[in-house]
Amino acid sequence: MSKAKTDATNSTQTSFHTADATTGQMTFAIIQTNFWVGDIAGNVKKMHALTLDAKARGADIVIFPELALVGYPPEDLLLRPTLGERVREAMAKLAEIEGIVVILGYPHIDHHGTFNSAAILQGGSQKGFYHKQRLPNYGIFDERRYFQKGRNQVLFDYKGATIGLLICEDIWHDEPIQALKQEGADLVVVINASPFEIGKQTARKELLTKQSSAHNLPIIYVNTVGAQDDIVFDGGSLIMQSDGSVAHEGVRFLNQLMMAQFDTQTKTFDTQTKAPLVLSEESEMYQALVVGLRDYVNRSGFKGVIVGLSGGIDSALTLCIAVDALGSDRVYAVMMPYEYTAQISLEDAEAQAARLNVSYTVCPIHDAVAGLRSALAPLLANSEPDVTEENLQARARGTILMALSNKFGHMVISTGNKSENAVGYSTLYGDMVGGFDVLKDVYKTDVYRLANYRNRLEDNPVIPERVITRAPSAELRPNQKDQDSLGDYETLDSILKMYIDDDLGYKAIVAAGFEPQKVEKILGMVDRSEYKRRQGAIGTKITKKSFGRERRYPLVNGWSIKG
Amino acid sequence: MSKAKTDATNSTQTSFHTADATTGQMTFAIIQTNFWVGDIAGNVKKMHALTLDAKARGADIVIFPELALVGYPPEDLLLRPTLGERVREAMAKLAEIEGIVVILGYPHIDHHGTFNSAAILQGGSQKGFYHKQRLPNYGIFDERRYFQKGRNQVLFDYKGATIGLLICEDIWHDEPIQALKQEGADLVVVINASPFEIGKQTARKELLTKQSSAHNLPIIYVNTVGAQDDIVFDGGSLIMQSDGSVAHEGVRFLNQLMMAQFDTQTKTFDTQTKAPLVLSEESEMYQALVVGLRDYVNRSGFKGVIVGLSGGIDSALTLCIAVDALGSDRVYAVMMPYEYTAQISLEDAEAQAARLNVSYTVCPIHDAVAGLRSALAPLLANSEPDVTEENLQARARGTILMALSNKFGHMVISTGNKSENAVGYSTLYGDMVGGFDVLKDVYKTDVYRLANYRNRLEDNPVIPERVITRAPSAELRPNQKDQDSLGDYETLDSILKMYIDDDLGYKAIVAAGFEPQKVEKILGMVDRSEYKRRQGAIGTKITKKSFGRERRYPLVNGWSIKG
Repeated sequence: MSKAKTDATNSTQTSFHTADATTGQMTFAIIQTNFWVGDIAGNVKKMHALTLDAKARGADIVIFPELALVGYPPEDLLLRPTLGERVREAMAKLAEIEGIVVILGYPHIDHHGTFNSAAILQGGSQKGFYHKQRLPNYGIFDERRYFQKGRNQVLFDYKGATIGLLICEDIWHDEPIQALKQEGADLVVVINASPFEIGKQTARKELLTKQSSAHNLPIIYVNTVGAQDDIVFDGGSLIMQSDGSVAHEGVRFLNQLMMAQFDTQTKTFDTQTKAPLVLSEESEMYQALVVGLRDYVNRSGFKGVIVGLSGGIDSALTLCIAVDALGSDRVYAVMMPYEYTAQISLEDAEAQAARLNVSYTVCPIHDAVAGLRSALAPLLANSEPDVTEENLQARARGTILMALSNKFGHMVISTGNKSENAVGYSTLYGDMVGGFDVLKDVYKTDVYRLANYRNRLEDNPVIPERVITRAPSAELRPNQKDQDSLGDYETLDSILKMYIDDDLGYKAIVAAGFEPQKVEKILGMVDRSEYKRRQGAIGTKITKKSFGRERRYPLVNGWSIKG
Repeated sequence: MSKAKTDATNSTQTSFHTADATTGQMTFAIIQTNFWVGDIAGNVKKMHALTLDAKARGADIVIFPELALVGYPPEDLLLRPTLGERVREAMAKLAEIEGIVVILGYPHIDHHGTFNSAAILQGGSQKGFYHKQRLPNYGIFDERRYFQKGRNQVLFDYKGATIGLLICEDIWHDEPIQALKQEGADLVVVINASPFEIGKQTARKELLTKQSSAHNLPIIYVNTVGAQDDIVFDGGSLIMQSDGSVAHEGVRFLNQLMMAQFDTQTKTFDTQTKAPLVLSEESEMYQALVVGLRDYVNRSGFKGVIVGLSGGIDSALTLCIAVDALGSDRVYAVMMPYEYTAQISLEDAEAQAARLNVSYTVCPIHDAVAGLRSALAPLLANSEPDVTEENLQARARGTILMALSNKFGHMVISTGNKSENAVGYSTLYGDMVGGFDVLKDVYKTDVYRLANYRNRLEDNPVIPERVITRAPSAELRPNQKDQDSLGDYETLDSILKMYIDDDLGYKAIVAAGFEPQKVEKILGMVDRSEYKRRQGAIGTKITKKSFGRERRYPLVNGWSIKG
């Protein structure tokens, strides 16, 4: 392998040629694992150990995901002036490893700016680098805030094969892979930090099948795993033959060191013996929520989580996810009944906690509400009860949960779903308190699907059946039913998906067959709740468009729904 | 004026030539005013009226700011599929006006994508358009999320002068104005939505002096005014002679229709007779805070605001700003004493309210805290008092303020300053409740400056002197003083400004002469408070780097302060 040209940004191609004899076989180790944002020292240590492991297993080349060195997305950590020095030190340490070629994602900082890059390390030094050409700046992505565009293809020859490099967004466009083909690539390596959303793995496979077969090129597609704040990376790394078929598929949501043999004569990969496990939509949603919560809580340094149980389906499902994420000994359920709490709510909350074997405490809020009312009495003496009094209950509960969090060092997790968050059917500083909202991006109709899915996993269902079948209620006044305020959830969710996920307007939604007054009411509720969402906890993205960094709306604006 | 080439994105220059005789004089009307984000119909109506006004005053050309049609920044409203139709209808209405040339900012949507553009309208149709070439994607700006880059200069001839167009960021770079000069421009019109920060007007003047004199070109620089969420536009539109001197300067923070005469022979503007009012730093900060709060409250549709008064300086200053923004009849002060509230706090809170003539209510929180404690008693029985009990007081107050908000329809505004927000010296869901945090971007040392500034404006100071001179305290336990937790505010703010505003690291701050342990402690507090800030209310940006959309940090990350 020869020395790389030092400045790839001004060259049209960077090539490396190996002096090794062609053996006909090349062994790749694909590292699908979790690199923590900002923790450069920890990530280097992990890469060091995994590289030695890959070498011991006979790998010629080991491949790490996009920006593995700093984790993804590093956001404004990329603007810290000390980053460059930290990266250089880390890269020097990694380059020391002998006897294996290392490809990894890192932020490349030089006099041209900062690039989202792939490094090729071998035998004590960095042999070359590739700069990502297509920088996503939509949805959750802000890459043009940080990175300069790469302008060149990079290929290197090793053991008789010419390998071209790409990074994530590059492969979603035709030009970069086409250019690699024209430059003589035998094989394309794509390193990724590709976030999960429902159906994403199917979309990736379709894309890679299309790109590999259209260009007659085998592709190694390495994805990362684990969660960073509201984003989950779901792994599922793929190795494609040049005919568009899948040779290897990594597991989803779990760390994996995947080995693959490439025949440099036939330009084909060996194929895995076991068929990959294809996850159902419920299963991938559920796993994403588990990983999202687990990584957030563990990285925040909290010992455990506190969940306010209401006897309803949202908190029931949240409790399951918490237990599956952290183990039952790190989950603390608190039931906070008041006057409007039904007896079956108390029974069902207790039953859930018992079936999941978590700590369960009942803390009635009568005194708390009475104390708040008493303090307010002189000011509210002449007014009729309204939403004010309902919110007092929710806020008394929020305050109690936060007091327990302060005292015992557990994180409060909230249980609001996407349908409620969308229309503002929630109390700010009340049921919205918490560090993480587990169901934030789960529509209510999907909450039901996931509850049924979780119940099917065990002989003895963990969520009592009547929690699923009873009509949902916030239980903040007598005989309250969600549907009195919101209508049925099927209709609500259909309208919300069109408005939020698909960005459609009033006219298009009415044209799809929904009642105009209902559409106007719901869209108005969504727009008026922007200020609540802005102060809400983060939660794992699973849909096409989650509330959070990928939906940026002005809080006050004069856009009229009907135009 | 001839018809524009229809597709400026593929041409190198778009020119319009007038058939009118050269008179030697051209009259410009510069519209420095507030256009509300999303309210296209309202903005069109406003532009219509102002154009007729400008025409009546003899203007040949009327100029509106950047994106005046949809307000700035429209954020993801730009992604709505119905936007294109709304813009086309609005532009058709504006083009109807006869006898005057209209230049305005609007989002141009065609088969190439969406552009941040300036339109030239005359005599019933759109004669041309210019697409912004430099799209800011740093700080508060996300323009590459929405817009395609323009690639061409646009100039038009009118009444004997060749006028070149630029938009905001374009003028901060040399190439666009240089290209206009080369293409023969006599005069450059720059439309802007340039956000306020401390010292920004001085920076703008320096820039425009440099650009006009370096290229020997007169410049008309039109800025917008008013606030959108956390951003304030401060006006101060400028008309520059080609020698770099200021011919006209618009007022700051206020609407203005500014007239200017351009002599097409000598290529000079008339100069304003009155010297522009130069604002002190305190004055511009204070005005920005007033405008930011006023526009947010009014556009949110709230009748008034509720402020929790503590007797301390933050709430005292917040009360002044609220009264100056909304008038004393829309401001409601609530004092919520508890065991640790000093008598002088009660006296001073009452005195402030009286001097500012606002509604003042005392609502002791003893019953509320007692009720919450009683509900929690069985769970906290064996524990020592700690921050949990302090937070209960803050959360009881937050709940009371929100109850009053719910009942009476006023917005709670919070009073946390930037120093506290930075280190997390605040209670989430407690003193952090509210729709708007007036001092969010004001360092504590600047809170003192502004309090003294406001007191100097009237013979009878509105903030009692001892509120300014007493040692600050959260009054959540006996004899609590802020400085016991935070040290003196001068040192704290110096370190915070280096870390936050200037993005410097531990080593650089220690090298500047601060005690290593202190620096480490403060930087750690900043990093650990990211989750609180994420759920905090928005507040007006006044510094170089405010907490909010321009500082995007991962909530959990492994970046170590010392590297």
